[in-house]
Amino acid sequence: MLNENFLKLSGSYLFAEISRRVKAFKADNPDAQVISLGIGDVTQPLCSAVTEALHKAVDEMAQQSTFRGYGPERGYEFLREAIVENDFRARGIDIDADEIFINDGAKSDTGNFQELFASDIRVAVTDPVYPVYVDSNVMSGRGGEPDALGRWTDITYLPCTATNGFVPELPQGHVDVVYLCYPNNPTGTTLTRGQLQLWVDYALSHDVLILYDAAYEAYIRTPDVPHSIFEIEGAQRCAVEFRSFSKTAGFTGVRCGYTVVPRQLTVRDSAGRRVQLNPLWNRRQTTKFNGTSYLSQRAAQAIYTPEGKSQVRATIDYYKENASLMREALTDMGMRVFGGTDAPYLWLQLPEGVSSWQFFDIMLNQANVVCTPGVGFGPSGEGFVRLTAFGRRESTTEALQRIKTQMTI
Amino acid sequence: MLNENFLKLSGSYLFAEISRRVKAFKADNPDAQVISLGIGDVTQPLCSAVTEALHKAVDEMAQQSTFRGYGPERGYEFLREAIVENDFRARGIDIDADEIFINDGAKSDTGNFQELFASDIRVAVTDPVYPVYVDSNVMSGRGGEPDALGRWTDITYLPCTATNGFVPELPQGHVDVVYLCYPNNPTGTTLTRGQLQLWVDYALSHDVLILYDAAYEAYIRTPDVPHSIFEIEGAQRCAVEFRSFSKTAGFTGVRCGYTVVPRQLTVRDSAGRRVQLNPLWNRRQTTKFNGTSYLSQRAAQAIYTPEGKSQVRATIDYYKENASLMREALTDMGMRVFGGTDAPYLWLQLPEGVSSWQFFDIMLNQANVVCTPGVGFGPSGEGFVRLTAFGRRESTTEALQRIKTQMTI
Repeated sequence: MLNENFLKLSGSYLFAEISRRVKAFKADNPDAQVISLGIGDVTQPLCSAVTEALHKAVDEMAQQSTFRGYGPERGYEFLREAIVENDFRARGIDIDADEIFINDGAKSDTGNFQELFASDIRVAVTDPVYPVYVDSNVMSGRGGEPDALGRWTDITYLPCTATNGFVPELPQGHVDVVYLCYPNNPTGTTLTRGQLQLWVDYALSHDVLILYDAAYEAYIRTPDVPHSIFEIEGAQRCAVEFRSFSKTAGFTGVRCGYTVVPRQLTVRDSAGRRVQLNPLWNRRQTTKFNGTSYLSQRAAQAIYTPEGKSQVRATIDYYKENASLMREALTDMGMRVFGGTDAPYLWLQLPEGVSSWQFFDIMLNQANVVCTPGVGFGPSGEGFVRLTAFGRRESTTEALQRIKTQMTI
Repeated sequence: MLNENFLKLSGSYLFAEISRRVKAFKADNPDAQVISLGIGDVTQPLCSAVTEALHKAVDEMAQQSTFRGYGPERGYEFLREAIVENDFRARGIDIDADEIFINDGAKSDTGNFQELFASDIRVAVTDPVYPVYVDSNVMSGRGGEPDALGRWTDITYLPCTATNGFVPELPQGHVDVVYLCYPNNPTGTTLTRGQLQLWVDYALSHDVLILYDAAYEAYIRTPDVPHSIFEIEGAQRCAVEFRSFSKTAGFTGVRCGYTVVPRQLTVRDSAGRRVQLNPLWNRRQTTKFNGTSYLSQRAAQAIYTPEGKSQVRATIDYYKENASLMREALTDMGMRVFGGTDAPYLWLQLPEGVSSWQFFDIMLNQANVVCTPGVGFGPSGEGFVRLTAFGRRESTTEALQRIKTQMTI
């Protein structure tokens, strides 16, 4: 009766374990002022362009003549057109509104998209990796069994380490689908256009589908780093892209994102015929999803107005300034820091012999600062922790000061 | 590579076909004032208790001190507690907040819940039925093949007809899961407490799980009709319940609902051990869902305030008055009408020999009124159409007038 794949998963999600340890620490140290640089949640409020749009949308919902019930499952055209114009056409990318699916955040679609595939396909992920890609495939029977390090026997892992500059090598054996996330969560590193072109070329020549998570795209400032995989020649024939307004505009509580499924994109069926994914994803969404809140969609549209753009940019710059301060301070302390340039995440390499969870406990106890143990993202994350730049400025600088003065490691 | 179950589904969803025919009719008859009594969407605006709560929540999101990022995946406690208190404890039902999962509408969870089960379980549905239950199981490989009438070989159908008073008989052969929806979509009929008790007793004695969709609960006024399956002794050991604010408070565009997964509820694994569903559903949600919009949750909370309750009740009464007018007028025309007493749907039996789609076309052409062909919900829906009471009063009475004076059938 049961889908027993669920029983293979550990009950405790990474962030639940962190939360448990923090709670225990606070219980033992009720006076400690704990600062979290751990979970990737934003702290700055919604910008005024967005809140004005929200108030206006609420007023519309209060009047019969402007009330809106069910919207289109794939999202309102006003938002899909704004996305096409600003996120794609402005970068010379030819994507149209029917290739955009609005959702309630990237997590849902990165988790659900695998439903379109057979349960025996081979999935590749980077190591370390955002746990949703792995867990959603394990639930669908694509994991096999977990080994002692937490790696699944039927999943192909592509290590990203300091040695290879966090650039995953192309898979050796056969894979059907590969998940890539750039700017990367958790390492905060990016791929250049040339590095991503190698992946697209590989995908086209090996008939591999790339599921590309670009949730942190808004943090890119380096010119040679692509904002979308569709900047790369051929990508519309081999890739789906996931975008989110969560970290772009502080929508972690508002819930809105989108997925791009190009019309050109096909995968083979068992008879070798090519089948378009766009109508299949539409069929999935019309069956199991009833559209994103009208309010959230109006909020998202406001991000693309001139005021919205500049306000959102200011908040991103604020977080990016946090990241710079963190990079600088930690480097000054003699630590090796990756990421944080085109991403809100810093990936901190720990001194030889110190494990992720050991460092987590030391930092919590000595500096009262919470980080995320790298090993929680996969075995290649051992010896690292992830820090996020989403804190308030004063908390971030206070945390850095404490790390500098109170920690002995 | 592909999940080929998707290819078995017809591309055209019922409402897409209706929309195509209406569009064609409007193109040919640009002056016709078409009134829709078809798709089940509401028309009355949000009540002021809700819009005030929404404005307040937007203001909170505009200030750093009150801004909210990620909420708990299972929903904020303020809402779960309000639900427990008002929807359950007030009816003498002992459900607690940890058994409630807030979602973005019942369609998502009724579609997704089957992920917890093995792909070879046997599913039973009523006929006619809300298509989501069937299609989501077909996508997961539980359908077998469709027959000429659109029924799936591996799904057990329980006919609901005028002959059995739309009360489904208990399945003859083995089934693992049965979907029940009361008040029913599409027939608008209900089960009494005694009738539902038979189902619960059957489920307990045959180890069957009931997935109970109570999205239209707010329309019940008849005393002997249960609002929740958990009013029935033993149901917490054999049932999950889906609720929605869509038709209760006009949230079809706001998106909020909830699912109740009792702690007592278990299903067997392949070794015959009993496994609790509540933690499994939580694992599913924490992996593939990031919580419902904070704004939508505050909106839902407002429904449970004294003002919210009376305002919401007034709107439901408005729709129920539509339903009464429709029942009365159609009965006066000599038609046989079911439902519409404790539900926003009326199920109209057509004259002998007239098919659902024939009647749809006649009503569209002669009265310029849109209905939903009953056969679209399953073969036992042939010879019926569904009408909804969600229209504005003036449109509803105008539609009835036209049906009376302009239709010759």
